[in-house]
Amino acid sequence: MTTRLCRTFQTAPAAVPRENTAKYLDSGLDATGFAKPDWLVPDIEDGTAPDMKSEAVENVIDRLPETDFAGEVWPRVQWGYDSPAFREAGTEQIDTLVREVGDEIDGLVIPKVGRLPDVERVAEIVAESEATYGYPTGSVEIALIVETPGAKSDLREIAALGRGPDLEPSRDDSAAPETTPDDPEPTADDRLDRLAGLIFGPVDYTAELGGREIAGERPAWESLLVDLSNEASANDILSVGGPFDRLFGERAGVRFYNGDAYAEQVTREARVGLDGSWSLHPKQTVQANRIHTPSPEELARDVDRIERFQSARAEGTGAVTVDGTMIDEATYRNFANTVETVTSIHERAPAQPEELYDEALLARALDLDTGY
Amino acid sequence: MTTRLCRTFQTAPAAVPRENTAKYLDSGLDATGFAKPDWLVPDIEDGTAPDMKSEAVENVIDRLPETDFAGEVWPRVQWGYDSPAFREAGTEQIDTLVREVGDEIDGLVIPKVGRLPDVERVAEIVAESEATYGYPTGSVEIALIVETPGAKSDLREIAALGRGPDLEPSRDDSAAPETTPDDPEPTADDRLDRLAGLIFGPVDYTAELGGREIAGERPAWESLLVDLSNEASANDILSVGGPFDRLFGERAGVRFYNGDAYAEQVTREARVGLDGSWSLHPKQTVQANRIHTPSPEELARDVDRIERFQSARAEGTGAVTVDGTMIDEATYRNFANTVETVTSIHERAPAQPEELYDEALLARALDLDTGY
Amino acid sequence: MTTRLCRTFQTAPAAVPRENTAKYLDSGLDATGFAKPDWLVPDIEDGTAPDMKSEAVENVIDRLPETDFAGEVWPRVQWGYDSPAFREAGTEQIDTLVREVGDEIDGLVIPKVGRLPDVERVAEIVAESEATYGYPTGSVEIALIVETPGAKSDLREIAALGRGPDLEPSRDDSAAPETTPDDPEPTADDRLDRLAGLIFGPVDYTAELGGREIAGERPAWESLLVDLSNEASANDILSVGGPFDRLFGERAGVRFYNGDAYAEQVTREARVGLDGSWSLHPKQTVQANRIHTPSPEELARDVDRIERFQSARAEGTGAVTVDGTMIDEATYRNFANTVETVTSIHERAPAQPEELYDEALLARALDLDTGY
Repeated sequence: MTTRLCRTFQTAPAAVPRENTAKYLDSGLDATGFAKPDWLVPDIEDGTAPDMKSEAVENVIDRLPETDFAGEVWPRVQWGYDSPAFREAGTEQIDTLVREVGDEIDGLVIPKVGRLPDVERVAEIVAESEATYGYPTGSVEIALIVETPGAKSDLREIAALGRGPDLEPSRDDSAAPETTPDDPEPTADDRLDRLAGLIFGPVDYTAELGGREIAGERPAWESLLVDLSNEASANDILSVGGPFDRLFGERAGVRFYNGDAYAEQVTREARVGLDGSWSLHPKQTVQANRIHTPSPEELARDVDRIERFQSARAEGTGAVTVDGTMIDEATYRNFANTVETVTSIHERAPAQPEELYDEALLARALDLDTGY
Repeated sequence: MTTRLCRTFQTAPAAVPRENTAKYLDSGLDATGFAKPDWLVPDIEDGTAPDMKSEAVENVIDRLPETDFAGEVWPRVQWGYDSPAFREAGTEQIDTLVREVGDEIDGLVIPKVGRLPDVERVAEIVAESEATYGYPTGSVEIALIVETPGAKSDLREIAALGRGPDLEPSRDDSAAPETTPDDPEPTADDRLDRLAGLIFGPVDYTAELGGREIAGERPAWESLLVDLSNEASANDILSVGGPFDRLFGERAGVRFYNGDAYAEQVTREARVGLDGSWSLHPKQTVQANRIHTPSPEELARDVDRIERFQSARAEGTGAVTVDGTMIDEATYRNFANTVETVTSIHERAPAQPEELYDEALLARALDLDTGY
Repeated sequence: MTTRLCRTFQTAPAAVPRENTAKYLDSGLDATGFAKPDWLVPDIEDGTAPDMKSEAVENVIDRLPETDFAGEVWPRVQWGYDSPAFREAGTEQIDTLVREVGDEIDGLVIPKVGRLPDVERVAEIVAESEATYGYPTGSVEIALIVETPGAKSDLREIAALGRGPDLEPSRDDSAAPETTPDDPEPTADDRLDRLAGLIFGPVDYTAELGGREIAGERPAWESLLVDLSNEASANDILSVGGPFDRLFGERAGVRFYNGDAYAEQVTREARVGLDGSWSLHPKQTVQANRIHTPSPEELARDVDRIERFQSARAEGTGAVTVDGTMIDEATYRNFANTVETVTSIHERAPAQPEELYDEALLARALDLDTGY
């Protein structure tokens, strides 16, 4: 069993006013070890100045065919449920990117979507470009930034766009797509399976609700993150937390990377089942990759528990107690999750688990049959 | 850009057994400075004794034409999704108030509503009185106390009654109201745009769920407040927190106004984007008005940030960093919210910002163009 | 007014590899005083080893006709929205239990349900067995473990299966069941009123969302518990918190029952209106029964408040202030809840309130008319 990874969703401005306007994009594509993000998101939206949007698109088109970046690449285009101008600009960016690098990108990140009809609108635009340029239906996925009250209100229906027809419980047959493979015309059902993930956007969200930072404290939106995690899991898609923009702190005259606060945010996100965290900086990528990777202690503990459980069950007892806790299938699956995540990371980025775990432990983990 | 204000939702018993039975109503209407509520709510429901309901209605009818109160006036009538007697009494109160002071009130506060059909039922009753006495459709708004599990369960559909036909994303045309202007008969669509706000009612809500105060601690219902703020924002209506009834504390023999605890509740509400807080006392009104008004430090900081951002952008750089934080349109809108709220307060109650801010800062704020 | 009690939902493995394989089942059935659970749940699912499932069913069939256990009995059968094998096993267990002890059980606990159609599927299976063996429609109830993202996503629709046709606001007449009493064929509406409760299952839930225990801390899922409490109350069914499996702690060389941590969990659950807590051990049953029972101080306080309120109102004042808090109908109902719960416990298990309260206080409570 493997797991699709998005431990890190690293945005990089796709064009900046430097000599090399693709400086941050290049830096993301060239990162190694734990600084390599699972998803690199060339940001054509808020990270790029209004007069550099075209150059941002050009940089993506220029760099992607050249790179041997092993993660997924997801450009963020412009969009806005309440802005015809942003939607028009975004539609053009989508069309250009699919035409030029439809093979090189894994999908497109769409910000500021509103209610379900707005999401369906953007999904159809992607489907049209995909059909126009001859790509297979669904090959260009989308991931949505959830950052408006309308998107939150319709979250359940929006997330359901990610449910593939082969999942349990199956959709009613009468609703199943009837696609004619030779017909390039997109249908309403082309959007099925196109949605790959939901990402939280707290800054826009707070502004849209009229929320405020008071006494240095911002709203944490904990229940929203739980809802995001739930709806993503219910539809077998990914969920990712929001950016942490206080990159640096200063105290008593010393300026320093704000590593504690970011790590705490990522930890809270991992605990409630978000698959990954947003990164704005290579140091954040290192931390988020590490936290969303089982620690050596966790891996050792869960490998050990699985081995002891399997031995105990081989002896025929039903309810097995390990470390004072009764293990049933539910408990067991928590342990299995740990091992399966490590297996997936090893398949995708072997350097990371090899750096993190001792050789014998990693071998035991990769060797386990995690079926119950 | 202006914002509809409801920083304070102050209930006042509309009739009490004193020589002047309208004592608290008069006190609310005559309040000045920060003690003046944005919304004054003459309470004909739980704040008025059963045998004084008629006098309560009479007091409202008597005082409103005389007053020069500059805020909004929203009488709270009786209602109950589970009580035919309360609905009958409420229907008569609605009819009397619309007939006698339909021009003087801004709307009616409806408590203890249940699921969507119960809300539609009360909206139709208001529409009928409105039509009977010749007021324009939608001129008498309603605001709902959310305090039953049914109303919470249907919150999304209930809040959607507040969505006007001109909002983005627009409603499907096939669902648009087809009103014949000359026809006084109310239709199902008359309720559209009638809903102005959602107010939380924690005491009834806790009782209906069977919740309990244990070890001096009551449930905080944080996720419900976030949902209320979200659904209100998604439909462009107001949201308000619940009352704080521990008006006075006592410690070591001294009784005192419980100002710290109330201020903390109001702060939590402001943080998650509730537009206002419930007040039971002029001192609470002062505090809630102040907390839902940007502090001088916030205003100075955000005016400064907007000015620096606008200068930096005039020089052509895209991603601007201010105070170590990258500013994009999303971040910017948080700053703009601060300034726009102050502008609205100044238009409505100039004495408040003039008391709070120094003259030069206020002038800079009122002078800013907050467009991005 | 009485309240259906489920302060304690105690699971007991229905068969274990001991000389008496029904050891834990017998122990639950024979418990007395505060160790007697309101609901005893013979666990045929995760608590029983795969090779002992048949014996587990046999033990339930064997013991129930003999016992004089005064609480409700709810066997937990196997199920799984994503597992045809578990559903097949569960269907057979349901059929056998209804056939053999349909009169002795109060209902069946169904774990790992998915979205609404999966719940409807299991409800129909119960309806079929019920009809086949001649039991009245709805006599075998179901209670669901909410422990998958699909069940959480559809919680509102699932909980609505519990709404009886006579509740306010009434269902649309066109949707009302049209049953022909002589027709044994189950219809879609047979499931109405069959759903009696919702129980949280955090271990499976955490695994399904990919959540993790990090730094010894697990996700608390507070907003989910509030949603569970709300939807249960909106449909007049019961809600119960999840199990606490860290039965024993160890510190400085001493191993001890983890009574503080469990009591804190139960307290949080009681505060937000969950009707009961899950118990894995007689000591947990004692604690949960006690915490979900009003304390002597609470009962004395609320009896006193009701008596003072009734006296004050008899003197004609409207808004009565007791202990510095204004009492209206909403506040009053919180006090009445306390007294009504004690009355229900006294009807069901008189030994418990007689142990807990002094005789005079209990007499005053049982004597009160709690109507407003």
